[in-house]
Amino acid sequence: MPNEGSYEAAKRKSDEVHADLLVNPEKYTMLTGDRPTGRLHLGHYFGTLVDRVRLQDMGVRTNVIIADYQVITDRDTTEHIRDNVYNMVVDYLACGLDPEKTMIFTHSAVPELNQLMLPFLSLVTEAEMERNPTVKAEQEASGHALTGLLLTYPVHQACDILFCKGNIVPVGRDQLPHIEITSKIARRFNERYGKVFPEVTGLLTSTPLLPGLDGRKMSKSYGNAISISMTAEETARLIKKSKSDSERNITFDPENRPEISGLLTTAGICTGRDPREIAEEIGMGGAGQLKRYVTEAVNDYFAPIRERREELAKDMGYVADVLHEGNRRACEIASATLDEVREAMGMVY
Amino acid sequence: MPNEGSYEAAKRKSDEVHADLLVNPEKYTMLTGDRPTGRLHLGHYFGTLVDRVRLQDMGVRTNVIIADYQVITDRDTTEHIRDNVYNMVVDYLACGLDPEKTMIFTHSAVPELNQLMLPFLSLVTEAEMERNPTVKAEQEASGHALTGLLLTYPVHQACDILFCKGNIVPVGRDQLPHIEITSKIARRFNERYGKVFPEVTGLLTSTPLLPGLDGRKMSKSYGNAISISMTAEETARLIKKSKSDSERNITFDPENRPEISGLLTTAGICTGRDPREIAEEIGMGGAGQLKRYVTEAVNDYFAPIRERREELAKDMGYVADVLHEGNRRACEIASATLDEVREAMGMVY
Repeated sequence: MPNEGSYEAAKRKSDEVHADLLVNPEKYTMLTGDRPTGRLHLGHYFGTLVDRVRLQDMGVRTNVIIADYQVITDRDTTEHIRDNVYNMVVDYLACGLDPEKTMIFTHSAVPELNQLMLPFLSLVTEAEMERNPTVKAEQEASGHALTGLLLTYPVHQACDILFCKGNIVPVGRDQLPHIEITSKIARRFNERYGKVFPEVTGLLTSTPLLPGLDGRKMSKSYGNAISISMTAEETARLIKKSKSDSERNITFDPENRPEISGLLTTAGICTGRDPREIAEEIGMGGAGQLKRYVTEAVNDYFAPIRERREELAKDMGYVADVLHEGNRRACEIASATLDEVREAMGMVY
Repeated sequence: MPNEGSYEAAKRKSDEVHADLLVNPEKYTMLTGDRPTGRLHLGHYFGTLVDRVRLQDMGVRTNVIIADYQVITDRDTTEHIRDNVYNMVVDYLACGLDPEKTMIFTHSAVPELNQLMLPFLSLVTEAEMERNPTVKAEQEASGHALTGLLLTYPVHQACDILFCKGNIVPVGRDQLPHIEITSKIARRFNERYGKVFPEVTGLLTSTPLLPGLDGRKMSKSYGNAISISMTAEETARLIKKSKSDSERNITFDPENRPEISGLLTTAGICTGRDPREIAEEIGMGGAGQLKRYVTEAVNDYFAPIRERREELAKDMGYVADVLHEGNRRACEIASATLDEVREAMGMVY
């Protein structure tokens, strides 16, 4: 995590861009994405998907990468990758990403993007890559030795952002170091070879992280995450078997009552109500009543999205077309940028 | 450098392939290359170019990469890169590489080759990359911090070798670790995703390294290297001003008389004579006579090559065509291999 001073600077810049976005959306190109390791859940939805759709509808050029190579930074298999990728496109479309406006594509289909790894790797030192706190954290979490791909993944992210001349990237505070390394690469490239790449701003999101049903970080592996793609019944079952605590009276107290508060936060975000108000309303109704309330809140909110999802899933030919068209456009853009890079570096033969 | 046991094993395998090459050349695909940092010199010629031409004419599929991205592993500029690349092609052709048989191409023109970096980086650990002795030596020699590109360059070499399913790579003993890492990557990929890549053998060359005119390692930066592209006059001047020692009588004694012996070795390799015999013949004729002898030997040997070189240099359109055609073929092969890799990894959408 960057120190307080650099955080304040990043926050100021982010605030400036947030303000300018309302006036000059056409000045901005956004890049963001996901690793296709499973289904998207409510954390993804409220944490980033809503915001992507908002930027898209404001008129920002929006680009979403399905980072399929990043699946193997910390694992030895690409099992289910095809299914995960297609379902990710379905989730995106169901949640409101419009393929006419937003370019949806995969790493593996865009060689000219990946080629940027070569010049970009020359612009950073091993020490700079090692200092990245996310690399360290993910390596420790994986329990594996640090692979070359995990070590260099911030450089690969720089390729993602810069190939499409992205100048805004929605980030949480802990992802600011990625923006720093991307900015460093863009700046060093421009200094050495001539200006090709824009300045990149990390757009700090104000949305607090949605906790899982048990109050911990939301994660499929904890079994505390409601997927967008679940049915109403699956959602009900998952909420029903989620943990509560021994106190009957429902109160909102994230620190001491993480499970109850996780449920309340989920209900709050889906209904647009304050979790404290919901807690008071239920009071001695207890965990059973709370869970019924949460179930209804989630299922009501996601009913139209899930309906669209079901329709889309019936037409996987269309879903494939969306991805093919996104990949085609990404290849076109990457090819043009790579030509500029070759020109700047004198590698035109 | 690998330990004695693994060297012996590598030597045995190399000897087997050397023998089999005479019988079954069509079973082999060779990949080798050069960094385009300047003109090729006699060390390159006798050390590798002669051998490439021999393999080409035996019927081995021969591929030569001009590693333009590797120029920036340890420097901040690509100055003169275009000129260096074109002149390298001219050198190759003048020395006997036949573009109908040998594919000549550059890194920067083959995105599908470079994309292999991504899956391959996932197959090695940072520790394995750091252990490579050449990476360490080159970093120390450069005096710069270790860049991401220098750290990962053995992985990039694996991409070069494996994209064209290369199964033999001419190497000196000190380059065996590169073959080891390439073999490791091929083996791990095949184990995880299914067999795509061949087994790779380092073809140990029996040619001893040709020393520079002063007996040290031949290097443009030492001013002790005769370039293939020099004129007869430039060659004469360089040899004339090369160091000798205070003893008049000419003897072949590499350890105690490196300068005189460097000159004798150069004369020997160009005339096919034993340097000792040349030394005896000149004897009290001294360094002046020796230098005249070396000059004539070099200029006689390279006269036809230089003549071809001059002809080629008059038709840079043809030279560009050769490179474009090589790049086109390399892209075709890389694209087919990348498709196999995507298929094996399930990344087909």
